[in-house]
Amino acid sequence: MDAASETELVPSGEGRPVASRRKRRGSGRDRILECALEAFCEIGYQATSVRDIAQRSSVSVPGLYHHFSSKYEILLTLIRRVMNDLIVETSKAVQDGGSDPVERLGAAVQAHVKFHTERQQESFLGNTELRSLGPEERTEIVALRDQQQAIFGTLIAEGVAAGRMHAGSVQGATRAIVTMCTAVASWYRPGGSLTSESVADQYRAYALAIVTGHLP
Amino acid sequence: MDAASETELVPSGEGRPVASRRKRRGSGRDRILECALEAFCEIGYQATSVRDIAQRSSVSVPGLYHHFSSKYEILLTLIRRVMNDLIVETSKAVQDGGSDPVERLGAAVQAHVKFHTERQQESFLGNTELRSLGPEERTEIVALRDQQQAIFGTLIAEGVAAGRMHAGSVQGATRAIVTMCTAVASWYRPGGSLTSESVADQYRAYALAIVTGHLP
Repeated sequence: MDAASETELVPSGEGRPVASRRKRRGSGRDRILECALEAFCEIGYQATSVRDIAQRSSVSVPGLYHHFSSKYEILLTLIRRVMNDLIVETSKAVQDGGSDPVERLGAAVQAHVKFHTERQQESFLGNTELRSLGPEERTEIVALRDQQQAIFGTLIAEGVAAGRMHAGSVQGATRAIVTMCTAVASWYRPGGSLTSESVADQYRAYALAIVTGHLP
Repeated sequence: MDAASETELVPSGEGRPVASRRKRRGSGRDRILECALEAFCEIGYQATSVRDIAQRSSVSVPGLYHHFSSKYEILLTLIRRVMNDLIVETSKAVQDGGSDPVERLGAAVQAHVKFHTERQQESFLGNTELRSLGPEERTEIVALRDQQQAIFGTLIAEGVAAGRMHAGSVQGATRAIVTMCTAVASWYRPGGSLTSESVADQYRAYALAIVTGHLP
């Protein structure tokens, strides 16, 4: 069958998303964040030292401490940033999606999927290293995840109320759709045969099938 | 909205699946595997030492080496075992699922989902530590994943050929369904309000909606 190739399931063939080919940004702070992200995805947060991050970023250890008080602050900054960006982009897509709940849900799905084709490493980090956050910060990030999921849940509840969607369980359909769309980060290959937009369109159709019964 | 609670998104509230409450098995080998799995999920493979695993398993380091030649062998054994078990259980469900491709796909989805509600830590490990495998072993595990995905792909292709399913892209629908069902391992809470069976039924309906257009 056509889906069964290594490249489909494992971006980079290395079992973790690799850095996109965009140019390293100039600022020391941004470079440190990018290099830390790479290291955390390659060997894990616990196994990465501040020295590793400094070396990858071509800054001294004191230079790194000028920007961040700890490795932990870097991790938290990365996970916070990606969640906030995701919420902003999805909310914007919903606002621009018109008044029909089906169209708005479709727009949310497309935004969420497109985001996850573009921010694969950060998505992997958020899924794997939530374990490394302290209780307070974990609560904060989980609340941001809930906020993102609530965008979808609200749209589905509206769609059901308007008779435009059907869901035995709004919560169940919401979770299925959001996790299906998030998983795109685990297999998408930038530069492969599928564009980010075509995947977003595909998943829009799958998500709407679940709540409207219209075939993709 | 009802989906937005911490407990829904983060089993154990710790950002990683916790060990199920089943009793530790007697044999030294099995106990070592179980304790290594816990450690790898808590702090990551790279950050876990052989000494850590021995301590958690209440065996000496030489005692551990009696069963495994290295930490790497333990990781590989865990990842291999869960993939093989998944393929066996799904294949069995398909065989018992009758002759109708829709029923067979439904049975495959239920088996895959149920498995992921029961083997959450191993699923997390397979997703996070594929990066830690060498090229040859990574290829082996990716081939097993492909084999699991091919079970679904073949059923969908058969369903389409028989006029019982519709899929713009068999590959796309297969991937969406399998990843949606795998993600159950990331949020399911054993002992919570949803039984393993009820989630399996829910996901059967979502998956069939994607390829048949029949509402869940």
